[in-house]
Amino acid sequence: MELTSVRQLFREKEQFAGQKVTVGGWVRSNRDSKNFGFLVVNDGTFFEPLQVVYAADKLDNYTDIAKIGVGAAVIVTGTIVETPGAKQLFEMQADEVVVEGACGPDYPLQKKRHSFEYLRTIAHLRPRTNTFQAVFRVRSLIAYAIHQFFQERDFVYVHTPLITGSDCEGAGEMFQVTTLDLNNVPKNEDGTVDYTQDFFCKPTNLTVSGQLNGETYAMAFKNIYTFGPTFRAENSNTTRHAAEFWMIEPEIAFADLKDDMVLAESMLKYIIRYVLEHAPEEMNFFNSFVDKGLLERLNHVLNSDFGHVTYTEAIKILEEHNDEFDYKVYWGCDLQTEHERYLTEKVFKRPVFVTDYPKEIKAFYMKLNEDGKTVAAMDCLVPGIGEIIGGSQREDSLELLEQRMDELGLNKEDYGFYLDLRKYGSASHAGFGLGFERCVMYLTGMGNIRDVIPFPRTVKNCEL
Amino acid sequence: MELTSVRQLFREKEQFAGQKVTVGGWVRSNRDSKNFGFLVVNDGTFFEPLQVVYAADKLDNYTDIAKIGVGAAVIVTGTIVETPGAKQLFEMQADEVVVEGACGPDYPLQKKRHSFEYLRTIAHLRPRTNTFQAVFRVRSLIAYAIHQFFQERDFVYVHTPLITGSDCEGAGEMFQVTTLDLNNVPKNEDGTVDYTQDFFCKPTNLTVSGQLNGETYAMAFKNIYTFGPTFRAENSNTTRHAAEFWMIEPEIAFADLKDDMVLAESMLKYIIRYVLEHAPEEMNFFNSFVDKGLLERLNHVLNSDFGHVTYTEAIKILEEHNDEFDYKVYWGCDLQTEHERYLTEKVFKRPVFVTDYPKEIKAFYMKLNEDGKTVAAMDCLVPGIGEIIGGSQREDSLELLEQRMDELGLNKEDYGFYLDLRKYGSASHAGFGLGFERCVMYLTGMGNIRDVIPFPRTVKNCEL
Repeated sequence: MELTSVRQLFREKEQFAGQKVTVGGWVRSNRDSKNFGFLVVNDGTFFEPLQVVYAADKLDNYTDIAKIGVGAAVIVTGTIVETPGAKQLFEMQADEVVVEGACGPDYPLQKKRHSFEYLRTIAHLRPRTNTFQAVFRVRSLIAYAIHQFFQERDFVYVHTPLITGSDCEGAGEMFQVTTLDLNNVPKNEDGTVDYTQDFFCKPTNLTVSGQLNGETYAMAFKNIYTFGPTFRAENSNTTRHAAEFWMIEPEIAFADLKDDMVLAESMLKYIIRYVLEHAPEEMNFFNSFVDKGLLERLNHVLNSDFGHVTYTEAIKILEEHNDEFDYKVYWGCDLQTEHERYLTEKVFKRPVFVTDYPKEIKAFYMKLNEDGKTVAAMDCLVPGIGEIIGGSQREDSLELLEQRMDELGLNKEDYGFYLDLRKYGSASHAGFGLGFERCVMYLTGMGNIRDVIPFPRTVKNCEL
Repeated sequence: MELTSVRQLFREKEQFAGQKVTVGGWVRSNRDSKNFGFLVVNDGTFFEPLQVVYAADKLDNYTDIAKIGVGAAVIVTGTIVETPGAKQLFEMQADEVVVEGACGPDYPLQKKRHSFEYLRTIAHLRPRTNTFQAVFRVRSLIAYAIHQFFQERDFVYVHTPLITGSDCEGAGEMFQVTTLDLNNVPKNEDGTVDYTQDFFCKPTNLTVSGQLNGETYAMAFKNIYTFGPTFRAENSNTTRHAAEFWMIEPEIAFADLKDDMVLAESMLKYIIRYVLEHAPEEMNFFNSFVDKGLLERLNHVLNSDFGHVTYTEAIKILEEHNDEFDYKVYWGCDLQTEHERYLTEKVFKRPVFVTDYPKEIKAFYMKLNEDGKTVAAMDCLVPGIGEIIGGSQREDSLELLEQRMDELGLNKEDYGFYLDLRKYGSASHAGFGLGFERCVMYLTGMGNIRDVIPFPRTVKNCEL
């Protein structure tokens, strides 16, 4: 079917004035004024809808059209007419309106406004609303901006595995993956599970990070990134945690922590610039209806250098405000969201990198600093969210890495492939992880992770 | 560290002639001729390596450099000198060679040639070889080409969920996802598993397709695509099956089977064109060392229209050659790879769409044709592979869809969200699935799916 998209009509309006076109879309509203009526049609390609004027003297099926319900699918043919001075810049004067699929009065999106909580219960229909049209188009654009950023810089995109035989960085609880019958789990003589009968002949889990696998590719391609789903079986029912989410994990070789931060800052600015340029209507909507200061904040980020502070300095600053925190800070403590937000919102008033954390609160693979106490780690904190990126330079000395693994009681045999990278042509390298959904929340101002994931998975919730 | 990439040196060679640059990379070979020597250095950014000439009268550490082993990481600084007439167009005359990370004689990639089977056992090191540098760079480029193709056309990228509470299209066996302790599965009084104690309070699996979820978004955004991991717990140990693989599933509304095929053909041609343009060195390598006819075949595809044949016609053609097949064909049978390849390689000699299959061998959601016997399905077959794409127009009539679900004994309550799409503003729509790894195999000529996935997961195999 030769259809014109509403996006084309808006983006190339000059060329369509006076032209006859056909558009397929869904009715957002229908107002009948006896001899003529207005259909507002959204076809999903553009945030703004098309206004269609239909007249009794032109349509044989006028009375039927006047009764079309909200949500119906229609195919409308007519002439695009400029309407200077009116609310919308142009409208379609219909020659023909065909109902492709009706929509009854039990349609759950009848009313104009619904709460986000209610809309979560109809995750299959909510993308038809203004807010979720905007959220999920912007989500798509952010994903593409990330690919474009890395591909323009010749990074190799690596699909690290989802099903894994090891706990990798020991981060959080994991989901087990199995083909064993849970009603009748096969057992060995000693009562343990007989994994030789499982699909992979051993216990397997869903990955919590592609980093260690990603490092193996960085030591071959120099610059790589991953972009894939990640899982946490954490029983935390918050607005920022989901059991299934997407992560971006770049890894760069012949690079140190400073290179890593330069990359992270360029990437975030690139994404912001891309979205402001490609989704101005959606971003204005968020700024007006979801988060009033959004555009000012994002533009401020574009125009400022990110702050830098060491963990030790940050603790000194925060200790002076300990009376304002639920959790008091002290050197050696992990930063909570309240501390992170204080630093980025109150102290720096822009995104800030906190670097050089105590080794005890960071992962085993991070490079030990010369002080022997801290590691070359960085977290990037942004206003409204807190930590959005966590990264580090990696320990590239075989000796120091093995020493650290021994201290932590890690089984070196499980990490043979990872140690090989330090045995065979080791090179300084660094990387970070960006939580994709946090990034979408940051750019849209949406406050709940459930509202930036098409079909969110959280504890006790796996619908559709 | 300010490094120049080998890719820059090759792609912008004119500008580097006579310039002093620093490159970090890994030694592919080292040849010492007493007073001068040659290091071949690959930095992973480009298929061709950089030749570095080092001389005893310029380097204090000449004797150390002469001993550098294959696989070592080095940082070399020197002047780029054009070498017209030589095998390589330019070389670096080194002022300084620093060993960043040594590599011992036990390095598993010492020898020049290793079998693919052997290299699979060192999946963390194989991307350092020519073949796998080429495979995984091209894999990355294909992924990006796919995103670019859809984004240029304003399709919305949708992340459909990986963990699912339903079997969706009933395609193949699934992996179960659980946080229950398999050593001690909690049971109800009647002996069944007590899923109220599982993470999602019900049994959950890894998805076999994002299509049904994707359709819900197509009915909001008109044109969408998914690109994510998919899982099959099938016990099939072939060169074309993996337990974890990536799929692309576009879905287009106000569209029929013909639109679907036009989209599929444009997409495949776009990908081929993109890869030929962006990875000419890699594609020449495949053509010379992996699959001799590759470039001719791909160029032929670019320059021909795909064939079209109905299933019924295809069966007539194939029946005449039944003596050549292991499995004899007859109307109503499913096509095997041998039949598919015969059609595309022998009969059409180019990619071909087979359409309108018997409804019995296709999924419940495919649109019933007017004959009442066949459905508006299409498979795209390509030489060397067989089926690479499978798609269909979807049944958009609530009545016919429910009728078909009843015939097949499907529980309509499990598909409430899917039926809602037909209740509320139903529109004709269509889509297809492209197996990403099959696409990579097709474009590289690689014969085993294990060799186009960074860390392949197959039955009894989940290493690294």
